[in-house]
Amino acid sequence: MAEKTKMGKCFLVGAGPGDLGLVTLRAKECVEHAEVVVYDYLCNQEMMRWAPESAELIFAGKKAGAHTLTQAQINALLADKTREGKNVVRLKGGDPFLFGRGAEEAQALAAAGLPFVVVPGVSSAIAGPAYAGIPVTHRGKNSHVTFFTGHEDPEKTESAIDFAALATLGGTQVMLMGVERIGAIAREMMASGVRKDLPVALIRWATTERQETLIGTLENIAERVAAKAFTAPAI
Amino acid sequence: MAEKTKMGKCFLVGAGPGDLGLVTLRAKECVEHAEVVVYDYLCNQEMMRWAPESAELIFAGKKAGAHTLTQAQINALLADKTREGKNVVRLKGGDPFLFGRGAEEAQALAAAGLPFVVVPGVSSAIAGPAYAGIPVTHRGKNSHVTFFTGHEDPEKTESAIDFAALATLGGTQVMLMGVERIGAIAREMMASGVRKDLPVALIRWATTERQETLIGTLENIAERVAAKAFTAPAI
Repeated sequence: MAEKTKMGKCFLVGAGPGDLGLVTLRAKECVEHAEVVVYDYLCNQEMMRWAPESAELIFAGKKAGAHTLTQAQINALLADKTREGKNVVRLKGGDPFLFGRGAEEAQALAAAGLPFVVVPGVSSAIAGPAYAGIPVTHRGKNSHVTFFTGHEDPEKTESAIDFAALATLGGTQVMLMGVERIGAIAREMMASGVRKDLPVALIRWATTERQETLIGTLENIAERVAAKAFTAPAI
Repeated sequence: MAEKTKMGKCFLVGAGPGDLGLVTLRAKECVEHAEVVVYDYLCNQEMMRWAPESAELIFAGKKAGAHTLTQAQINALLADKTREGKNVVRLKGGDPFLFGRGAEEAQALAAAGLPFVVVPGVSSAIAGPAYAGIPVTHRGKNSHVTFFTGHEDPEKTESAIDFAALATLGGTQVMLMGVERIGAIAREMMASGVRKDLPVALIRWATTERQETLIGTLENIAERVAAKAFTAPAI
């Protein structure tokens, strides 16, 4: 009887950038009380040990180029499990709302009239550079930082990034998920007037023991990526 | 003897945006092992309960307009305590490297040849909007977000923010620490061609039980701030 009337709830949880120590207290607590955990490729898989033995663990993908579930399938899965009255934890690498597609999941849950909570996480866009010794802002040096995706929605009608404006704006610029498009993006930035010797740092597997950093300039970074076979996940 | 040769270390730790649940596991662990904690106005003060009873707790300020210690004094304090062989935890609201002035502290420690570690935190710039129901990015809607400070270093020679370029760039824009300058900044943005009916949300005491949100447009936000006496800390 109690079972039948129990309300489900979905927690959209940032799992942090990879280092288990950068998981938040609330994220850990959510996993410890989960009945269903839907997790990503970029989440530290050790987090699953915190889940109750009875919890259902569902791998949602998405290694670049190898989506296990589509975004629509994930949205439907979260809604279905929540509607069944489950405590559902959707674990997402980094932060759910900074290029995490958490907005789409929140929208799907809201549209279905289901309760959800967003638990922000430490973004790899900030922590990755920090672990490589690069502060994204420095008072006296720059007053702004722009985070952009190198992996835009292919269905979007206009390429939303105005590289000429970005070049004029300056400041720190952090690109997420664009390593496989780095050549095209660097060319576009140079064509928009960005200086060729602009320092560029690529960081893969940020904050984990597999972290690697590759340094170059806007002009030579694509070549170095190819030479080192430097692949995703990178910023 | 062991006491004398012990190496000190300084941890520059992001305390998260305010909600105790958004503190990372490593941040908690750092406080639990601290011999000295140097903390800010914006840190959740309940974190101090995690410190050992023997730990020295030092309040560094900085409520807007009421700096308790200057940045130079904080830098010197961290270096001194670390040089004494202490386990020093520098707790900073949000993330130390996203407008946290952690870069300056790291530089001062590095210049003094002292070991330090950066522990990234959840930034209020991302978590604040999330708690107000605003995703900073939404695939299909925008591909970039710019974080800028409304509170630039007065000693910087050029105002680093090119509002015209920012206007052209578009995307989500999050200003930190600018509530007392909102009128001037909104005027400068409109003069740079940003549309007057651009939706603006201000969030103060983000993620805490005191969180308040104020909604307006670029044209009327300054008036609303004045009418509501909406003060710092806000984004």
